[in-house]
Amino acid sequence: MHIGFIGLGKMGFNLVLNLLRHNHEVVGYDINETLVTDIKAEGAQGVNTLEALYNALPAPRILWLMIPAGPLVDKVIEQLLPFLQAGDIIIDGGNSHYQDSIRRYQQLKELGVGFIDCGTSGGTSGALEGACTMIGGDREVVEKVEPVFQQISVENGYLHTGPAGSGHFTKMVHNGVEYGMMQAIAEGFEVLEKSQFPIDHEAVAKVWNHGSVVRSWLMELTHSAFSKDPKLDSIRGVMHSSGEGKWTLETALDLGVPTPVIALSLLMRYRSLQEDTFSGKVVAALRNEFGGHAVEKSVDKE
Amino acid sequence: MHIGFIGLGKMGFNLVLNLLRHNHEVVGYDINETLVTDIKAEGAQGVNTLEALYNALPAPRILWLMIPAGPLVDKVIEQLLPFLQAGDIIIDGGNSHYQDSIRRYQQLKELGVGFIDCGTSGGTSGALEGACTMIGGDREVVEKVEPVFQQISVENGYLHTGPAGSGHFTKMVHNGVEYGMMQAIAEGFEVLEKSQFPIDHEAVAKVWNHGSVVRSWLMELTHSAFSKDPKLDSIRGVMHSSGEGKWTLETALDLGVPTPVIALSLLMRYRSLQEDTFSGKVVAALRNEFGGHAVEKSVDKE
Amino acid sequence: MHIGFIGLGKMGFNLVLNLLRHNHEVVGYDINETLVTDIKAEGAQGVNTLEALYNALPAPRILWLMIPAGPLVDKVIEQLLPFLQAGDIIIDGGNSHYQDSIRRYQQLKELGVGFIDCGTSGGTSGALEGACTMIGGDREVVEKVEPVFQQISVENGYLHTGPAGSGHFTKMVHNGVEYGMMQAIAEGFEVLEKSQFPIDHEAVAKVWNHGSVVRSWLMELTHSAFSKDPKLDSIRGVMHSSGEGKWTLETALDLGVPTPVIALSLLMRYRSLQEDTFSGKVVAALRNEFGGHAVEKSVDKE
Amino acid sequence: MHIGFIGLGKMGFNLVLNLLRHNHEVVGYDINETLVTDIKAEGAQGVNTLEALYNALPAPRILWLMIPAGPLVDKVIEQLLPFLQAGDIIIDGGNSHYQDSIRRYQQLKELGVGFIDCGTSGGTSGALEGACTMIGGDREVVEKVEPVFQQISVENGYLHTGPAGSGHFTKMVHNGVEYGMMQAIAEGFEVLEKSQFPIDHEAVAKVWNHGSVVRSWLMELTHSAFSKDPKLDSIRGVMHSSGEGKWTLETALDLGVPTPVIALSLLMRYRSLQEDTFSGKVVAALRNEFGGHAVEKSVDKE
Repeated sequence: MHIGFIGLGKMGFNLVLNLLRHNHEVVGYDINETLVTDIKAEGAQGVNTLEALYNALPAPRILWLMIPAGPLVDKVIEQLLPFLQAGDIIIDGGNSHYQDSIRRYQQLKELGVGFIDCGTSGGTSGALEGACTMIGGDREVVEKVEPVFQQISVENGYLHTGPAGSGHFTKMVHNGVEYGMMQAIAEGFEVLEKSQFPIDHEAVAKVWNHGSVVRSWLMELTHSAFSKDPKLDSIRGVMHSSGEGKWTLETALDLGVPTPVIALSLLMRYRSLQEDTFSGKVVAALRNEFGGHAVEKSVDKE
Repeated sequence: MHIGFIGLGKMGFNLVLNLLRHNHEVVGYDINETLVTDIKAEGAQGVNTLEALYNALPAPRILWLMIPAGPLVDKVIEQLLPFLQAGDIIIDGGNSHYQDSIRRYQQLKELGVGFIDCGTSGGTSGALEGACTMIGGDREVVEKVEPVFQQISVENGYLHTGPAGSGHFTKMVHNGVEYGMMQAIAEGFEVLEKSQFPIDHEAVAKVWNHGSVVRSWLMELTHSAFSKDPKLDSIRGVMHSSGEGKWTLETALDLGVPTPVIALSLLMRYRSLQEDTFSGKVVAALRNEFGGHAVEKSVDKE
Repeated sequence: MHIGFIGLGKMGFNLVLNLLRHNHEVVGYDINETLVTDIKAEGAQGVNTLEALYNALPAPRILWLMIPAGPLVDKVIEQLLPFLQAGDIIIDGGNSHYQDSIRRYQQLKELGVGFIDCGTSGGTSGALEGACTMIGGDREVVEKVEPVFQQISVENGYLHTGPAGSGHFTKMVHNGVEYGMMQAIAEGFEVLEKSQFPIDHEAVAKVWNHGSVVRSWLMELTHSAFSKDPKLDSIRGVMHSSGEGKWTLETALDLGVPTPVIALSLLMRYRSLQEDTFSGKVVAALRNEFGGHAVEKSVDKE
Repeated sequence: MHIGFIGLGKMGFNLVLNLLRHNHEVVGYDINETLVTDIKAEGAQGVNTLEALYNALPAPRILWLMIPAGPLVDKVIEQLLPFLQAGDIIIDGGNSHYQDSIRRYQQLKELGVGFIDCGTSGGTSGALEGACTMIGGDREVVEKVEPVFQQISVENGYLHTGPAGSGHFTKMVHNGVEYGMMQAIAEGFEVLEKSQFPIDHEAVAKVWNHGSVVRSWLMELTHSAFSKDPKLDSIRGVMHSSGEGKWTLETALDLGVPTPVIALSLLMRYRSLQEDTFSGKVVAALRNEFGGHAVEKSVDKE
């Protein structure tokens, strides 16, 4: 199948390699021309404009976006609008908000253009060797590219989750669960680390991966991380996030679902970005006010 | 090797089968005589008193306890005390509190009796087919039974974690992590369930198990549960707990480790045991007091 | 001063009484004509249409809205639009989302109409006897009605918080803090209730109100509630909420502020609305899957 | 009444002044002799040994301890044991764990010595001008000193909560509630601080104290703190704690009471003591492992 691929970053590049391995003909585009050159070296066709991408594909076109969620997706769709014809299909493989995907689906449907929201999990290694894909969209549209999703996914790692938006929704919740699982694992290792016992984290992560209830890919990755740096001394505990955990919590609030573990996983990430906290200052000040407990001086003021 | 096995419940019975399969000679004991009869049918020797168990074993004896944590473990050790000889080894394979294990280790060490605390994970299927074992105790004592631990565990599923207590400590933290991972998964599926999409939970659990970041044994079990009951309609959401999550949190508090996800996983279990809450009554009463917001009448009083 | 008052519910009615007591001339309107009749009996003028309300006031008009937040506020403003003249002032005294207030401020500013967002705290008794008001809006507009705000508020209970939206923003955060304080109090009394001691909640709430660190109006209300129903037996612990707690958390997420206590206060309210939980079913099912722990049957299915 | 007072720290010193003002004759003792000299200057008798303290009092003696909770209380009681006579009364006015108080009550009861556990709230200013006291102990013993408790407390600020231990229990829970209220207030001000509005914290704390639902002594103290340092720039947000919040949570866990707000208030205090977290390192490492997300280098290693 001919596929136009927009966005050749860590995930996109590997997905293209994955597609090439399954004998698809890929035309790759990225604003970063180096990445276009690189993908050409791998056997794809490379172009430097969206127009060139569109024109390089036979009708109906399949256009796969693997770009940062948000306004950029709208911008790329807008730039494609002058060319798009009924029957074309746009796949958004990124981490877009599911409500944006529903909106884009409706916008494109009016033009006869199909839209598929594809949540893609498995990290960069999965993108290369077999991802997990959660697909939302009209059945008749999804069916046209279903074989491609199945090929680039691991066995049983493909699901048509339902109507437009459901793919990104399922992926969003997946990431919320992921936040919670990661924080649970991380808290456990901090308890081990602070304990009276001379714990070998790498060995514990390894044994927990063999036969225990908590065995999981995340535990394998934990093992891998400790095998490189036994106490993670080189890493700062700053936990960035890319939005899906926040969206999961916001969605849970809208749906009235109590999700304390997902909420706290997210809030502890926010907390990790702070050197000092205003809330901590207030509590310290209050303890001083009523109990005369000494406050610590702000570092900035010393 | 000759092994005396005390406690033939769900975990113990399967561990004995596992031992027998590896050609060990097991003498089994349980206060429930039916279980003794059953284990005899499987090829073990069965006895109905601890004295008989002890006498059926060649010196030095290996006595493996797989019984409920708490006073019962002390009681069984006390009942064995008249017989115990220097060189004997007691293995506690249950979920004892690590501080109890350290105390028992010291008590027995004075008699020259070895004590090993063995945290056992993997559930009943793991007990049968290959467990995950975390072993605390003196190296020279552990080495004497190490081959047995390795045989009954899956490959790489055995670890000598360190001194006495460290095995049960590591298992305790494992269970704390398990609570957090389970709650994270559970919250995610509740968001899916309450969403606008017609989610097929079984299909989602299956796809999340193939290539996604959250793939794990717990997700396989989630898939299994949904395959039997697609909406879990037959199950009440009452979450019991057996102590290790609470101990993990208590230990974290002693160590000054912030573990919000483990804490909330535990507190939501407690909450699930309540039909109504006193705290909820207080908040409802306060909203009525200041805002005139109507309260709902207690069901008991209607 | 002449004031047109729209919305004569629990809060609005009391605020009108408060205004009348300070010798303002109030024209009251509500869709519920009984409330209009009632307010006339208290000395206000009463009307049954917004047009009549508008026409009953001298220019420039002061129109005070005390109606449910959301689309209704937009609807009322829309119905007033044909009449509104430059120099008129609309005060929104309800719990509108601050972003809606900023939008309405801008919409009305283009017409030369002033808009003030007034967060009103203190409950129904405060509305009657002296409220706490947090006012956002242009200084020159706020100054025109400032004396009124000061009169209906307790001494020092009035603040011009800043530009449009800041009044409702400050009130929103106030309510977030209120959620947290209420939940903290409620949790404490549940610990007392479940303890081994024969606690007299009314007496404890009373003593905690006299000299202790936690003395507060909420504790006074707690005392009042227990004085009527010593164990709150007649009340169900269902905690409804009206939006500001959720908005505070959503705002905190947007600002990257970790607010675990406000988050959990809200999530426990959501939890209190559930008889059973899907997340609980998932955890119970998982415990059954790996450990053979019995599940409780769903009540619906028994 | 003659009272022997042991411990002349911030709380104890002020309580002695309070007692003197009510015309009690106080014999003061502290290991810090300067404090003994200081209290003599205020009109108390001062002594430098527990024996001298005991001998300076008429039988039956009233011995009031205001010393740090824990082993020191046991040590002081042990040092008093050679002198104690039936009929003497020991009052522990500190923040002892209620279970220790029950144990001490029983130990002393065997000697005919009365024991009263007195939880004291209100901070240092309350100790001086009128505290809030929660008293546990046998009715006939409490009655003997009841007038003293009433005099040093604000009006209605004294309560005999029940049997031995109940005073310290009630105070412990009070402090748990206090943690929650403080954290709620603190989170609210952090949301204000990070908002788009130019919030004047001092003014907000002041208006929230006049007529609002959250008016409270803690809010008065918040106002006081902001009046001295508008942004708390000089204070570091390190939140120490002295044990009662932890005990409240541990007690809640034992009683099966879900107390998420108290739990998180405590855990955020622990978090504030950490510059960096091991759990954060684990999450950052995991994000790097699966997504190639860059980690931040540990400061120590730069």
